Amino acid sequence: MNETLDDRLAVNKTAGELAALVGGKLLGDPAFPVRRVAGLSEAGPEDISFLGNSKYAQAAARSKAGCLLLPLSAAEAPALCRNRILVEDPQFAFSQVLVLVESQRRRAPARLDERSAIHPLAKLGPGVSVGPFAVVEKDAGIGEGTEIGAQVYIGENVRVGRFCKLHPGVVVRENCVIGDRVILQPGVVIGGDGYGFSTDKKTGRHRKIPQLGNVVLGDDVEVQANTTIDRATVGSTIIGPGTKVDNLVQIAHNVQTGRDCLFVSQSGIAGSSTLGDRVILAGQAGLAGHLKIGAGAIVMAQSGVMSDTPDGQAVFGSPARPHREAFKLQALYGRLPELFEAVKQLKLKLGGDGK
Amino acid sequence: MNETLDDRLAVNKTAGELAALVGGKLLGDPAFPVRRVAGLSEAGPEDISFLGNSKYAQAAARSKAGCLLLPLSAAEAPALCRNRILVEDPQFAFSQVLVLVESQRRRAPARLDERSAIHPLAKLGPGVSVGPFAVVEKDAGIGEGTEIGAQVYIGENVRVGRFCKLHPGVVVRENCVIGDRVILQPGVVIGGDGYGFSTDKKTGRHRKIPQLGNVVLGDDVEVQANTTIDRATVGSTIIGPGTKVDNLVQIAHNVQTGRDCLFVSQSGIAGSSTLGDRVILAGQAGLAGHLKIGAGAIVMAQSGVMSDTPDGQAVFGSPARPHREAFKLQALYGRLPELFEAVKQLKLKLGGDGK
Amino acid sequence: MNETLDDRLAVNKTAGELAALVGGKLLGDPAFPVRRVAGLSEAGPEDISFLGNSKYAQAAARSKAGCLLLPLSAAEAPALCRNRILVEDPQFAFSQVLVLVESQRRRAPARLDERSAIHPLAKLGPGVSVGPFAVVEKDAGIGEGTEIGAQVYIGENVRVGRFCKLHPGVVVRENCVIGDRVILQPGVVIGGDGYGFSTDKKTGRHRKIPQLGNVVLGDDVEVQANTTIDRATVGSTIIGPGTKVDNLVQIAHNVQTGRDCLFVSQSGIAGSSTLGDRVILAGQAGLAGHLKIGAGAIVMAQSGVMSDTPDGQAVFGSPARPHREAFKLQALYGRLPELFEAVKQLKLKLGGDGK
Repeated sequence: MNETLDDRLAVNKTAGELAALVGGKLLGDPAFPVRRVAGLSEAGPEDISFLGNSKYAQAAARSKAGCLLLPLSAAEAPALCRNRILVEDPQFAFSQVLVLVESQRRRAPARLDERSAIHPLAKLGPGVSVGPFAVVEKDAGIGEGTEIGAQVYIGENVRVGRFCKLHPGVVVRENCVIGDRVILQPGVVIGGDGYGFSTDKKTGRHRKIPQLGNVVLGDDVEVQANTTIDRATVGSTIIGPGTKVDNLVQIAHNVQTGRDCLFVSQSGIAGSSTLGDRVILAGQAGLAGHLKIGAGAIVMAQSGVMSDTPDGQAVFGSPARPHREAFKLQALYGRLPELFEAVKQLKLKLGGDGK
Repeated sequence: MNETLDDRLAVNKTAGELAALVGGKLLGDPAFPVRRVAGLSEAGPEDISFLGNSKYAQAAARSKAGCLLLPLSAAEAPALCRNRILVEDPQFAFSQVLVLVESQRRRAPARLDERSAIHPLAKLGPGVSVGPFAVVEKDAGIGEGTEIGAQVYIGENVRVGRFCKLHPGVVVRENCVIGDRVILQPGVVIGGDGYGFSTDKKTGRHRKIPQLGNVVLGDDVEVQANTTIDRATVGSTIIGPGTKVDNLVQIAHNVQTGRDCLFVSQSGIAGSSTLGDRVILAGQAGLAGHLKIGAGAIVMAQSGVMSDTPDGQAVFGSPARPHREAFKLQALYGRLPELFEAVKQLKLKLGGDGK
Repeated sequence: MNETLDDRLAVNKTAGELAALVGGKLLGDPAFPVRRVAGLSEAGPEDISFLGNSKYAQAAARSKAGCLLLPLSAAEAPALCRNRILVEDPQFAFSQVLVLVESQRRRAPARLDERSAIHPLAKLGPGVSVGPFAVVEKDAGIGEGTEIGAQVYIGENVRVGRFCKLHPGVVVRENCVIGDRVILQPGVVIGGDGYGFSTDKKTGRHRKIPQLGNVVLGDDVEVQANTTIDRATVGSTIIGPGTKVDNLVQIAHNVQTGRDCLFVSQSGIAGSSTLGDRVILAGQAGLAGHLKIGAGAIVMAQSGVMSDTPDGQAVFGSPARPHREAFKLQALYGRLPELFEAVKQLKLKLGGDGK
């Protein structure tokens, strides 16, 4: 049977059960039946939604949701809806409800599609799924419970951990190693050759440097659609555990990242840079090669980092500077017309022609 | 038989027929036989070409084309070639000829390749084609006359409209909805998970927020190669009808765009931003999340928009400013050496050391 | 048998043999057996590594490598390890060793996988391999010794040269032409439609301009993962021989490049621009359309070129300026606080209020 929108978003718990799930305080009717999850503006009187960003306070006030997850600070606000669940972090609470919803959805049983090409010397753990037209090459190993989607390519001698999900069209080239609970969205390429060439100074020809290393993705890494992570020349390109990589990100050969980093869409990291834990690259940011980026550093959107960056430093601009300096310079930049005018006036006062 | 270049670009109409097709005024011989379409510099004496950009006026003057589509303003110019067709918009007239050429090319008859994997509960309209190694999952519906290319993936419960063309290697994940006459170039990913994580402040771990929504592409949308459009957390990421998205563009979860927008290559739109009709993002431009961008706004190349933008506003820079202000600031920026020197001279005049 | 790390990186030559291979001067024991290649920090006492970048001199000093490739300037440095091979270009010498390693690896024999879809009218040269679930359409021609990976799509009438390697998931659309020894990494799309639309000024609708041309890749071109190169409207998009294109690069319709160019990751070239030989685009750089970029020009990271650029010119910034000017302006930009303060002081001296 067709899965409807209601099926996909079905909660079917009481407000009281949900308050218990998220550890929140319910103001309202514990027996109130919550049917679905929904966004603030689409939610109806049987739905649960949340206010995660104060920017949406008005949308929350107008929302028809029957139940809302709200920040503790909303306790004394005028009642927004009949059933309010107060929590410290409404976005996280909402995500807990989403996890519940997802866990209640039907899940296809594990199976090896007969239209896949699994090499007889590949080793598949219990409960592994392989979709149609997927390829698992010689000596590859796939851990327990991992789903290999349709049209995925797993190269020779690749190791994929347990309970991973590789969506359709993912390519993992030979010898790469993928941890447990890793998610690869469609079109991700792991282990493409690094961009390594040695240029003959006399002829200007670029001679390919074989890229014989691999990529190692830690446990709980997620890599999103069409992102590319290149194999090392020798050794490994390493993505630390828990790191989440958005769509269309480039990670070059021999990069090593710490754990729990966030690389937002279209950011890029050039070869051999090393990043500490919890580094954040905002959208379209770039790092030059051979840099050391300290733990907790933040590179703001579209910024370009050309030099080593200490722990915890936020940087902005292209080339990037510490963010306080960068913001001050941007403010002064916006005042250039005033400065030019002031200098003109000074020159006039001193008897020049003001040009 | 091999399709040659001549077959691919064959026109085989008279100059008079083409003038009628494009609604132009022919100066020349109505019976002149036009064999092929070609660019200005490659065109031969039996070919038709066009002058669309005055930058190429010299190339037009040198062109050996037997027939040229020219702007009305060229009526009194020295005859560039023996057969000139004057039209208001030569680029559009040329595109009308190209549409004619395309319509005359041989087209493969619709067929369901026996090497595809079409679920028995998928619903295919009349005249649907499915290429080899394509997958159409359970409860998916494909509208009349739509071509599903080789190696395409159509997830469970996806709706694809009529007369669409999905090129090889496209992935459309579960529950997404695609309008009529939509074109998806190779490698496009529709409905990858949005980049949604809730960070545990104590441990720094990022916990995945399930992405249970979908993507809705309006009628006449085109999405080009390797672009990614993420599914909403709940609700829908919506691309308005007639919007054309270039290669390698990122559109994040819960974005909503108006109709007839243009997103040029490598531009990106962060989560939950809403765009009016006919918004243009030039190449490598970026929008932050949760913004409102007014109808007809233009974001110039490599610009980064951090705040709401009114209707019709053109912006430039990173961070972006209204374009007049941005261009003025750029001009003053280029005059900084002169300003530093002026201030030095003023200091000298006032008895300082000029430092 | 499983290919181990040792197999993948195995050298199994003496230091003397390697010195001869790279044309270097050995200081050490010619009979010293070198087992593997490795990076400086991972290398053990039986391994060879190299010092290519003086930034890593300390790592070289600490390296446990049994044999090192070093620049001639290191001849009189304190012995870093027991066996040193002095060469002009240690990176290139190391790459020669990597080529040796690669040539010694087992290679799968050529075969046409029975699960591929090869059209009976496709023409395959001797020694061609086609992987599982690959598609080779009608009238396509594949040259001697070329490897078509799993899940690759080769469109109608495509020409692929000799000794090419197309990795899994590559798409080459109809009529494109690929030279000899070309390497396409996973997910590359060659010949997607150019982004060509003609906008109806009255309705604001964008009407698709058919893209009937093709893409021509010269000999020895490499295109890396998920990069897109669009087909010309008419005529050809041309990538000159020896040009190397990194991951996630965008090359638009009707672009023509010279030979031996380098386009680093996430750079983009808009439509109809022509580039001379050996042009370098650094990471995330962009070129506007219809430009002429001279031979040997260098566009630095994140820069945006809006105008023609002469031979050999290096440019920086967005919009890009000649790099000397751009660097000077950046330096003055960093001194804006000082300039504002100086002007304030001057105003005070002249009896103003310093505002």
